[in-house]
Amino acid sequence: MRQSKLFTKTDKSAKEFESVNATLLQKGAFIKQVMAGVYEFLPLGLRVLAKIENIVREEMDKIGNEVLMPSIAPKELWEQTGRLEKVDVLFKASGANKASVEKNNAEYVLNSTHEEVVTPLAKSFNQSYKDFPFAIYQIQTKFRNEARAKSGLLRGREFRMKDLYSFHVSEEDLKRYYEEAKKAYTTVFERVGLGDDTVIALASGGDFTKDFSHEFQTRCETGEDIIFYSKKLDIYFNREVAPSKAPSLNDENEEIKAREDVVGKGIIGVQELADYLKIPVEKTTKTLIFETDKGEIIAAAVRGGYDVDEGKLLKIIGAKSLKLASAETVKKITGAEVGYAGILNLPAEVKVYIDESVANRKNFECGANKTDYHSININFGRDLPEPEKVYDFKVAKEGDMHPETGEVYEVFRAAEVGNIFPLNTKFSEAFDYKYTDENGKEQIVYMGCYGIGTTRIMGVIVEKLNDEKGILWPEQIAPFKVHLISVRTDDEAFEKAEKLYNELTEKGIEVLWDDRAGVSAGEKFADADLIGTPWRVVVSAKTGEQVEIKKRSESESKLISKEELYTALGY
Amino acid sequence: MRQSKLFTKTDKSAKEFESVNATLLQKGAFIKQVMAGVYEFLPLGLRVLAKIENIVREEMDKIGNEVLMPSIAPKELWEQTGRLEKVDVLFKASGANKASVEKNNAEYVLNSTHEEVVTPLAKSFNQSYKDFPFAIYQIQTKFRNEARAKSGLLRGREFRMKDLYSFHVSEEDLKRYYEEAKKAYTTVFERVGLGDDTVIALASGGDFTKDFSHEFQTRCETGEDIIFYSKKLDIYFNREVAPSKAPSLNDENEEIKAREDVVGKGIIGVQELADYLKIPVEKTTKTLIFETDKGEIIAAAVRGGYDVDEGKLLKIIGAKSLKLASAETVKKITGAEVGYAGILNLPAEVKVYIDESVANRKNFECGANKTDYHSININFGRDLPEPEKVYDFKVAKEGDMHPETGEVYEVFRAAEVGNIFPLNTKFSEAFDYKYTDENGKEQIVYMGCYGIGTTRIMGVIVEKLNDEKGILWPEQIAPFKVHLISVRTDDEAFEKAEKLYNELTEKGIEVLWDDRAGVSAGEKFADADLIGTPWRVVVSAKTGEQVEIKKRSESESKLISKEELYTALGY
Repeated sequence: MRQSKLFTKTDKSAKEFESVNATLLQKGAFIKQVMAGVYEFLPLGLRVLAKIENIVREEMDKIGNEVLMPSIAPKELWEQTGRLEKVDVLFKASGANKASVEKNNAEYVLNSTHEEVVTPLAKSFNQSYKDFPFAIYQIQTKFRNEARAKSGLLRGREFRMKDLYSFHVSEEDLKRYYEEAKKAYTTVFERVGLGDDTVIALASGGDFTKDFSHEFQTRCETGEDIIFYSKKLDIYFNREVAPSKAPSLNDENEEIKAREDVVGKGIIGVQELADYLKIPVEKTTKTLIFETDKGEIIAAAVRGGYDVDEGKLLKIIGAKSLKLASAETVKKITGAEVGYAGILNLPAEVKVYIDESVANRKNFECGANKTDYHSININFGRDLPEPEKVYDFKVAKEGDMHPETGEVYEVFRAAEVGNIFPLNTKFSEAFDYKYTDENGKEQIVYMGCYGIGTTRIMGVIVEKLNDEKGILWPEQIAPFKVHLISVRTDDEAFEKAEKLYNELTEKGIEVLWDDRAGVSAGEKFADADLIGTPWRVVVSAKTGEQVEIKKRSESESKLISKEELYTALGY
Repeated sequence: MRQSKLFTKTDKSAKEFESVNATLLQKGAFIKQVMAGVYEFLPLGLRVLAKIENIVREEMDKIGNEVLMPSIAPKELWEQTGRLEKVDVLFKASGANKASVEKNNAEYVLNSTHEEVVTPLAKSFNQSYKDFPFAIYQIQTKFRNEARAKSGLLRGREFRMKDLYSFHVSEEDLKRYYEEAKKAYTTVFERVGLGDDTVIALASGGDFTKDFSHEFQTRCETGEDIIFYSKKLDIYFNREVAPSKAPSLNDENEEIKAREDVVGKGIIGVQELADYLKIPVEKTTKTLIFETDKGEIIAAAVRGGYDVDEGKLLKIIGAKSLKLASAETVKKITGAEVGYAGILNLPAEVKVYIDESVANRKNFECGANKTDYHSININFGRDLPEPEKVYDFKVAKEGDMHPETGEVYEVFRAAEVGNIFPLNTKFSEAFDYKYTDENGKEQIVYMGCYGIGTTRIMGVIVEKLNDEKGILWPEQIAPFKVHLISVRTDDEAFEKAEKLYNELTEKGIEVLWDDRAGVSAGEKFADADLIGTPWRVVVSAKTGEQVEIKKRSESESKLISKEELYTALGY
C-alpha cells in the first residue's frame, strides 16, 4: 500500500493516555478513541486485527464450526438463565427516541457473551448421542457496560472476541475436548507472537463448576492480574485461587509476654496500628465480622497486612454470598464499636474462622472487643485455645508459599488473553438441553466455553513489545512485512522505489511504501519506527543498485543487494 | 469440508416463512431466526456472507480505506446533527439491570448509520486541501429498531452492510467520485451474480440534497420497491420520484351532462362510490385537506384510483411537513363532515392543488362539500374555472406515462441492494468540518455516502435464484463450488470419494463432501439441491473410474473422467 493513499497520519506528539497501548496505537494511527472503552480501528489497526483474527480462525476451524450469532437477543433468553439481573456489565437496547419507541416499544439484550444464544441454537439441531460432540464458535463484537475503561484495548465497552462453545454427552468427553482446546489456544498464542510469555493459570470456576477454569495469562508489567507460580509443581495460579501459606513468624527464642489491653482509639489501618503499638504489622490481626446469605454471623481473622479473599472464604463456609456485618450487629456481637473486633471471647453462636497466617505467631495483637481497645501479646493456648483448624482464606501475596511444597511462589503481573471454562450443565439445565442416549434415555448435555479477546491481544502485544520509538510488531501480525521508504523523491529514486514496491507486492510480500512527497527522511524513519513494521527498506540516490535494510528490533542497517533482500525476507 | 463435521442439518420440512429467502435459507441451514429480523449465520450461511463481503471489500479497497467504526457512540454526536430525535429506527444502549446501571448510568446510541462517527474521524486527520479527496469505508453490523421485520434478510433489526463515506473540496469533485463509486458498485453487483438484473434508479435525495440519490435495484418479484422505466430516456425511477402522467380520459364524443348533487351517505372508498354512482373509478376525484407545517390549509385533488404522494406534494408547496386536517378543520373549510370534500366552492384562503390526472376529464365526480352529498357530471369551464396550473403529486402507477415522452412506463418490482447519496454539506456543517484551501481560506467540505447491504444481497439472491428444490447459488458466492456425494458408503466407494475430495481440496477447489453414513442417496441428492452448490459430483460403485457430474441449474447428469471433471471445473 502507498502511504500517500492512507487517510490517516501518525502523530508523534499526540496525547499520552493512561495505558501504553492506547498511547502508541493512537500515535501510530492504528486506532482512535471515540469514547472511553470504544475505539475506531483505522486502516493499519484493522490490518493487525484481521491478521490476529485469521490466525484464531484457522486454529478454531480445526476444532469447531464458525457461525455468527447476533448482538441483540430477546430478554427472555437471559431471563431463562437468571442472568438478566445478575450480569453487572449487561447492556440492553431499546428505542432511542419517541418515534422509535412508537414504532417498536421493545427491549433487547446486547449480548456480552453468548451462552444464552448458542445453547438453544445447538439444541435445535442436535439431540441424539450420534450428533455429539460438536463445537460452535464465532469472532464477533461484544458489549460490556464497564464502569471505567482506561486500559486502551485491554478493557473495552465494545471489543472483539472469539467465543467457542462445546457440547458433550459426558463430563469425560468435555474434559477430553477441553485439553484439545487448550492445545489449540497454545498454538494461537504461539502464532500471534505471545507463546514464550503466555502461561496457563488456574482460576476460579465461578458458579459453573467446582473445578478450576483456566486462564491464558501473558506476562506483562501493566497487566491487571497477578500470577503465582509454583516451580516445584509447575503450576500457575491466578491470585484468586492461589493456595497460600504466610511466612512463619515463629521464633523459638521469642519469649511469651504478658497480655495487655491498650487504648488505641480511632486508629485506622494496620500500619498505623502497628506504628502506634510499636510492633511489626505481621503481629497485628484483622478480624472481620460477616453475615452470610444463610443469616449466620461469622468472624474471620487474617494476619495484619493480608486481606480476606471472599471467594476462598465462601467455599470454606459453604455460602453463596457474604457481606460485612452492620455496625449494629458488630456491636451486638463484639460489645464494641466497629474497629475493635478480635477473636477473644466472642459469643458461642459466632463461628470463628482463623486463617493459617494468624496462627504460628507469638505475642500477637488483636482487637479487644472493647471500644477503643486493642489486646497485645495474645498467645494461643494461653489467652485463647489453640484453633482446632486453620484455613486459607487470605488474598495471597508476594512472599507467600505454596502450602504443600513450602516453596515461595514466583509472583508476576500478567494480562489475560484467553480463558477456558467447564460450564458443565449450568446452561443445558437452564434450557433443558438433553440428548437421547444409545438406550433411548434422555441425558443432560455437558458444555464448555472458550474465549479469546482478539482486540485485547492487540493491546497486550503493544504493552509488551515497544520501545521509546514505537511499536515492534511480531511479523505474523504486523500491518505490513516491509516498510519501504523512498528518500528524496527525485524521479530516479522514486522510480527505483516504485519498481521494488511492485516487485515485492507481486511476490505477495505486504509492503507499506512511504511514497509521500515533501516529507523528510528523518520524519519517514521516525514514522517507520512508530508504526513498527518488522523490516525497513530504504531506497535512495545513495543506495545505488542496493537497498538499505534494517530490522525494527535492531539498530544497525546494512546495504544489501536485491537478491539478498529476498533471502532476508524469506523468499 | 466433510458434511459429517457440520453441526447443522438441513430440514426440508421446516416451517414456511412469509418470505422465500427466510424459508429456503432456514431449510438449508444457512441461517436461523433468533427473533423477528435477527438471525444467526450458520456455517454455510457465513461462508456465503464472507464471499459477498470479500467481493465488496476487494472493490471498495480500490476506491477507499477500510476501517471499523464502533457500534456504540456517544449521544452527543447524534445531538449535534439533530438526528437523535429524528431517526425513527434508532436504538440506544443502556444498563440492562440495576447492578449495570449502578456501574455506569449512561446511554449510548447504537449506530444505524455512521455519518455522525465518520465525520469527526475524517476531520481529526484531514483539514488541508492537500489531504483531499479521500474515502473511508467499513463492513459492519448495523442496528435498526424496525416495527416489523418479516422479509428474512431483506429487512433486519440487526444486519450487515458496507458503508462508504467520501470527502471532497468541492461539489464537482464529489460528483466525479460519485460516478467512480457508481462504477465500483456496478462491478460488485456483477461479481455477486446480480449484474444482469440490477439497474440504477433515481430516488429521493431526502433532506440532504435537491438532487436525486441513486439506488441499485435488482429486479425481484418479492422486492419492496416499484421501479418505473422510461425506455426512451433510458432512465429508471423509484416510484417515489417517477414523474407521471395519467392516461387521458378525454373522449371527444362524450357529451357534457348536467351537474347533479346526489346522496351517497357513508360510502367508503372510491371503488364503492364508483359502483354506487355507476361511473368508472377514473371519473371519481379524491380531495384531501392538509395542514402544512407553516399553518396553511390546502386542498389537493387526484383522480380516483390514485394516492397523493406527500413527498412530491411537499416539494410543490415548498413545505417541510404535512398532515391531514382534523375533522373539525375539514368541517370549517368545506362545511361538510369528512368524506365529502371536493374542489367546488372552497373558501378563497384555501389554496387548491389539482393533479394533472384530475383535468382532461369530462363529467367527473367530486365531493359536494355538503355532508352526505357527491357532485357528479362536473366539468371544468362550466362548474368551476379551468385550473390555471396542474401538477404531478400522485403516486405513479402502472399505465402512467412519462410526462415528457408520453411513453407508458415499464413497471417492475425490485429489491434495493445498494444506494448512493450526495450528502453535500449537511454533515460537514453540523460538525463544522472545513478545510484550508490553497489561499489559506477555510472552505466547507463536501461529502457523499454509499451503502451496500451485504446480508440483504444474500437474501435477494435467494429470492431470485431458486426453484422448487432449493437454492441456485451463483458460483462466486456459493458456500462451496462442488458438492461431492459418495453413494453407498461401502469401503471402496468411500475411499474413492475421499481420494477425490483430497485431490480437489489440494487444488484449492472448495468441496462439501457428503460423507455421512446411514443417509440414502435420495436424501443426499435432495440436500444438494436444497443447499444449491453449483456442481454436484457423485462417486459410487456404479461410476467406476468415472464420476457423475451435474450442474445445479441443469437436470441432466453425465459420466465423465476425472480429467474432464477438472476441465469442467475450470482447472
